[in-house]
Amino acid sequence: MRLSFLGTGSTSAPPLYGCDCDICTGARADPGMRRRPASALVEAGETRLLIDAGLTDLAERFAAGDFPVLLLTHFHPDHVQGLFPLRWGVGKRIPVHCPPDSQGCADLYKNPGLLDFQPVRQFDAFRVGPMTVTPVPLIHSKVTLGYCIESGDRRIAYLTDTAGLPPKTEAFVRDWQPTLLVIDCSHPPSSEPPNNHNDVTLALAAIATIQPQYAWLTHIGHELDHWLNNNSHVFPPQIVVACDGDVIDV
Amino acid sequence: MRLSFLGTGSTSAPPLYGCDCDICTGARADPGMRRRPASALVEAGETRLLIDAGLTDLAERFAAGDFPVLLLTHFHPDHVQGLFPLRWGVGKRIPVHCPPDSQGCADLYKNPGLLDFQPVRQFDAFRVGPMTVTPVPLIHSKVTLGYCIESGDRRIAYLTDTAGLPPKTEAFVRDWQPTLLVIDCSHPPSSEPPNNHNDVTLALAAIATIQPQYAWLTHIGHELDHWLNNNSHVFPPQIVVACDGDVIDV
Repeated sequence: MRLSFLGTGSTSAPPLYGCDCDICTGARADPGMRRRPASALVEAGETRLLIDAGLTDLAERFAAGDFPVLLLTHFHPDHVQGLFPLRWGVGKRIPVHCPPDSQGCADLYKNPGLLDFQPVRQFDAFRVGPMTVTPVPLIHSKVTLGYCIESGDRRIAYLTDTAGLPPKTEAFVRDWQPTLLVIDCSHPPSSEPPNNHNDVTLALAAIATIQPQYAWLTHIGHELDHWLNNNSHVFPPQIVVACDGDVIDV
Repeated sequence: MRLSFLGTGSTSAPPLYGCDCDICTGARADPGMRRRPASALVEAGETRLLIDAGLTDLAERFAAGDFPVLLLTHFHPDHVQGLFPLRWGVGKRIPVHCPPDSQGCADLYKNPGLLDFQPVRQFDAFRVGPMTVTPVPLIHSKVTLGYCIESGDRRIAYLTDTAGLPPKTEAFVRDWQPTLLVIDCSHPPSSEPPNNHNDVTLALAAIATIQPQYAWLTHIGHELDHWLNNNSHVFPPQIVVACDGDVIDV
């Protein structure tokens, strides 16, 4: 399998509007430092999964009639806003596996257009081409699912957005033994446990429990980038901070 | 006053995803043929009003601390989606005059961040610098307001999204005698009256009643562009089809 990070940013990703910190100023000058909304493309053979749709240029990235199968983690705007214009297109419908969230986001359910929403159930695996996908519940301010994706003997767990992990999810993913764990790490270590996203402390604790072969951190805000400038040595080599455009062959 | 069309497109604007018509194919090859989400900047002296926020690059277009005062016509995603990332910025709050729509769009009310939503009332004029703004009700699938903007002896009426006009709005705008009327014209003439947007027939009828000095058509879909290729002669010289980037000194 191959995983490509199309975006690795949180809602506080650099460049944050109005922020004059070194990280945000740098990201304004150098597009390579920018973090777009967290999302990833997972490929196995000819089959492609797009996890989350927060990028606003999806129509330019993926040809009509050849759009990947979509997996939505949840219906917050930074994870679905790219669907607002895309849905009005014409042609083949796009399968969208999503959490069973009765609200969705704005009028996406009312006017789905091309989008074929297919709610999934936690721990109820389904197949997409050669991949088996198991949705797992996360801890966030809206109904949110992570996805455990298996093809052959390789396993990717993509767990964002979340603050810690529900005990059932932690046990499932630990026993499943992922090759690669991609996990929410929005904030630097904080004095109080954050509510909706992992800080470094929570992300490292989850990695220590799950023991993947390697872990990549995503959904990153400008304050974490700032902290990393002075603290990158805290991570062992099997833990990597993802950047937009990074590609991993699993 | 000066009005700049930042976008002139409907949700079916060229290039429409998956559409292979001449207009959409042309717009993919030539950015000058594209229509972005309908929105306009109105300037009088140093004061600037931005009507609608469907552009997704607002943070790049307007410097932090110097954002225009916002007027929202309604809370459909193609008119507010640019606010989703912008709100998480830091610094000065941005006044957002908007219809009294208790739902808003997605979680904008729940997490307004920088946005200072200020619901306005129909026909209840307010001042922004040298401009007097009067909201007028329109006919659409969500609570929607047009805006009549006056500075000195010049008057701009911006009326989209709408299918026809409520009698009170039509009478008010007619008696107000706008210098410039900007009006929804999403579709070519249709056999049945459209529900949510003007077609050419409805737009021309409104212009004939209001009798502005000149009228510009906006909120345009690819099918209207296609129709215009063979029918542009139907409009008298005081009626103009707007394009992205057009600037009018009123």
